[in-house]
Amino acid sequence: MEIRQGFLPFQNRRDFFTPEDFTNEEELMLKTTESFVKNHVQPQMEAIEQHQYSVAARLFKEAGDLGLLGVEVPEEYGGLSLSKKISGLIAEKMGHAGSFSVSFNIHAGVGTLPFIYFGTEKQKHKYLPKLASGRWIGAYALTEPDAGSDALNSKTRAIWDGEKGAWVLNGEKQWITNAHVADVYVVFAKTHHGMTAFIVEKSLPGISVGPEEKKMGIKGSSTATLVLEDVEIPSENVLGKVGNGHRIALNILNMARLKLAFSNIGTAKQALQLAGDYAKERLQFQSPLIEFTMIQEKIADMAIAIYGAESAAYRTADGLDQGMEGTAEVQDVSELIFTFAMECSINKVNCSEVLARVVDEAVQIHGGYGYMQEYEVERLYRDARISRIFEGTNEINRLTISKLFMKHYQNHKHREIENIESNQGQNGKWMQTSEQLLYLALKALTESGVEIEQEQEYSRLLSDMVSDLYVMESAFLRSEKSGQRGRLSMTHKGMTEVLCAERYRKIAEAVKTILSSVEASEKKRKDWFNALKGIEYPEFSGIFEKKRNIAKDVTGWDAAQAI
Amino acid sequence: MEIRQGFLPFQNRRDFFTPEDFTNEEELMLKTTESFVKNHVQPQMEAIEQHQYSVAARLFKEAGDLGLLGVEVPEEYGGLSLSKKISGLIAEKMGHAGSFSVSFNIHAGVGTLPFIYFGTEKQKHKYLPKLASGRWIGAYALTEPDAGSDALNSKTRAIWDGEKGAWVLNGEKQWITNAHVADVYVVFAKTHHGMTAFIVEKSLPGISVGPEEKKMGIKGSSTATLVLEDVEIPSENVLGKVGNGHRIALNILNMARLKLAFSNIGTAKQALQLAGDYAKERLQFQSPLIEFTMIQEKIADMAIAIYGAESAAYRTADGLDQGMEGTAEVQDVSELIFTFAMECSINKVNCSEVLARVVDEAVQIHGGYGYMQEYEVERLYRDARISRIFEGTNEINRLTISKLFMKHYQNHKHREIENIESNQGQNGKWMQTSEQLLYLALKALTESGVEIEQEQEYSRLLSDMVSDLYVMESAFLRSEKSGQRGRLSMTHKGMTEVLCAERYRKIAEAVKTILSSVEASEKKRKDWFNALKGIEYPEFSGIFEKKRNIAKDVTGWDAAQAI
Repeated sequence: MEIRQGFLPFQNRRDFFTPEDFTNEEELMLKTTESFVKNHVQPQMEAIEQHQYSVAARLFKEAGDLGLLGVEVPEEYGGLSLSKKISGLIAEKMGHAGSFSVSFNIHAGVGTLPFIYFGTEKQKHKYLPKLASGRWIGAYALTEPDAGSDALNSKTRAIWDGEKGAWVLNGEKQWITNAHVADVYVVFAKTHHGMTAFIVEKSLPGISVGPEEKKMGIKGSSTATLVLEDVEIPSENVLGKVGNGHRIALNILNMARLKLAFSNIGTAKQALQLAGDYAKERLQFQSPLIEFTMIQEKIADMAIAIYGAESAAYRTADGLDQGMEGTAEVQDVSELIFTFAMECSINKVNCSEVLARVVDEAVQIHGGYGYMQEYEVERLYRDARISRIFEGTNEINRLTISKLFMKHYQNHKHREIENIESNQGQNGKWMQTSEQLLYLALKALTESGVEIEQEQEYSRLLSDMVSDLYVMESAFLRSEKSGQRGRLSMTHKGMTEVLCAERYRKIAEAVKTILSSVEASEKKRKDWFNALKGIEYPEFSGIFEKKRNIAKDVTGWDAAQAI
Repeated sequence: MEIRQGFLPFQNRRDFFTPEDFTNEEELMLKTTESFVKNHVQPQMEAIEQHQYSVAARLFKEAGDLGLLGVEVPEEYGGLSLSKKISGLIAEKMGHAGSFSVSFNIHAGVGTLPFIYFGTEKQKHKYLPKLASGRWIGAYALTEPDAGSDALNSKTRAIWDGEKGAWVLNGEKQWITNAHVADVYVVFAKTHHGMTAFIVEKSLPGISVGPEEKKMGIKGSSTATLVLEDVEIPSENVLGKVGNGHRIALNILNMARLKLAFSNIGTAKQALQLAGDYAKERLQFQSPLIEFTMIQEKIADMAIAIYGAESAAYRTADGLDQGMEGTAEVQDVSELIFTFAMECSINKVNCSEVLARVVDEAVQIHGGYGYMQEYEVERLYRDARISRIFEGTNEINRLTISKLFMKHYQNHKHREIENIESNQGQNGKWMQTSEQLLYLALKALTESGVEIEQEQEYSRLLSDMVSDLYVMESAFLRSEKSGQRGRLSMTHKGMTEVLCAERYRKIAEAVKTILSSVEASEKKRKDWFNALKGIEYPEFSGIFEKKRNIAKDVTGWDAAQAI
């Protein structure tokens, strides 16, 4: 795996996987998922929303039979040993499955991955075949009433009872997805030696599950409190080392964030499709809505945001795949995942916010119908709202991004700005200028001694700049790659251009805010603003025209044919 | 009433009413509303959400007894003959009443105002006392399945039947608020002479109401289809002149937009309160959330947006009040309202979008709890979504704003930029610069011959610039007024500063987009960008510090006391 040498900590920058690289064989997996969602899940949507647990249990078995649950599970434990990219592809398509996609993500992600990465041989043999086949359903119990964003502040206690020869667990875990349908939970509890992960089977005495929470959306996924009263767990059910639970929790959270990002991309594509279809059908003022440039602009913005999101997410998945090749030791996997923690958070924040904007505009394009439960976008809008909150609020993820970024920067700031080749036209210039701008902001932050962990407004701005840069770079390099193969479509070209131009502008605004907000002498500030003036700005034009074309392309709208 | 003489069409600019100007007597009305919502509506919230129509009917009578329904109704018809400002104040407080506030707005607004402005003496005597007392409930039937944004594209027909001596109405009206609880509807139908408004009593043969729509939010307000089958209406129930219905519809819509704006301000204040209270209580990482500057920033942004929104809305209401003094003729009222159409749309768009941001952040601050129905913000979030859609989507309102603005500009562009006094410090400079920027954008739009009605992206940008300018000017002049009286609080001062600085930046960005997007010769574009460079930019600093103080002020947070 190639690690970036410049001041930016982004990995696998030279050549990475793009959605265009999926092989026909891999796309079969996509077709399987698509047909599973269409033929198995969607007809049961109403039953799922009504919490008919037997329906969910049956769907898990069916998904297991199709191999959808064991994508990341090694073959020797009944899985397919496939990559993060394919796992991402499946999560994306499963994103069309409403509440079930949440159950699925939890099962195949945080409910299964801890066994793969941290389980003993015996634990793997015992649990993974059950989980991969869908005969058992998994869940993950970390959150507590007083441990939300402060996830490690657990009050659940595990005490070793020598007489019983078992760990005794007591506590209450909140908002546990799959609570009512799961057969096994990965439960985090404090021991004398620190946080520890336990494998807790539902059938054990002392376990009870509270009533279903009444939520704004994802109503079909089971969400309830898991209560542990003197639950005895044999020592062989400790996952990883005693006192090492925080590492497992954080590692697995990173993987969950990436999976959620893919799922959000899928749901966003679904919403875009619904909005586009509606805009082509609905007539007002004797024209289909799609003929109005205000609607075209919305459709294009949705499509461009999704394009950026998927470019970045598959790049991150690819980086993990490259790193995992030949990495078998727990310690190494754990370190590898940590290396990608920043990217996982970037994707989580970006994709959940892309989804938020997309479902919002999809509702808006539907007008009054978008507010009616009869129309699918209404549910998508409510379902989507949780994505900016769970798997770490976007606030927590932003703090993570800026913290990890600054750590890298402190160690590498002596390095030059290592611009990618400068002869790559307008988009290359946007990239280059954005990087210079970020560099200037970092200089100002460092010179003025801002403690970004206290002054979180700077964390927010820094995190957004870094994310914007990662997303635009990913889209840019994706287009470059397609271009080199002579396969860059006009639509993708246009989307990359608009995305680069707009993200650059956002970065430039953020830099100006930072330069004018930090405490500094008049002279220093003047120097910074002079440096700012010295940065060459690429021209910004034809954006509306490009967006109009993008909207027509992505909806397949051809006014001439329609008439 | 003073009309602006410069190129900006904003009215009552010199001295207008601000929320600080309410008298003690007027604030009594506010207290009455507050206590009505708290003691009568809120205990019935669950019953209302379940569509217990008798509860709504009783609440209307109670509101009527308190005078809350007759605020704008003349005294001779059982009302209080009070101003738009007080009506706004009541709508604002009623904004805390959830679904009932929607029923209330429709009743007291579009359900009652048509009688006041366009009714005959006989119609006024017959209907207004019933409506003002809440013994009858009003509704308004304009929308149809194919007439949403294209509101005048009615398929409902009214044909004069000479034999029966009555108009015969046939058609289907969609999404009629209060459909099931109303006693009288103002129904719009096409006649041979054009759109006409009819007073339609529910008890008439041929009227039926469809099932309740299942909506995302405002679940307690009745929303259903009104079906008219050979409904016979006597000619004395024609409201206004035959063929003049479009005028009534548009006039009344303007009033509805302003009322909705006030209601949105109220709901936004409620959400801010809930978010602030939660942020003070909830501990994470051993600190209340309010201690984190990322949360402070959110709270401040909410408060500042609300401050701007109320400054603008009361200014518009005041303009209408000034204009209405002594205006009795239907024709004059109609023209007056039209004069304020742009401002009504500005307030509708601004307040509904302020509300959207505020409820979104309120949910986010609540974290996972914000997604649970147990917490009030969850409902506020769903309820709020309709406000950007009904009473004219924000897209339609934006087109209205830009169209009316350009019309004024075409007639007055020879006028100089008439800056308000230039010695008013930093805020004054923001105002002045923003106005210059807008002027430059208009120059570019005109010189390049953009047809903004076709190229709606420009309409959107123009409308946002105009709205931002109106809101910032309103906040600025409000602070000026308080300052002149020596009563400008530090919080209001800070809010005005941040609001002016941030709106200015938004305007500057929009201008740059316009200048680089329009078609023009190299030379021309160069000229514009040179002109842009010539505009002096005020400094932009200390924003974060100001926001932190604002957040502490509005939540009453005192860390020292809390410890």
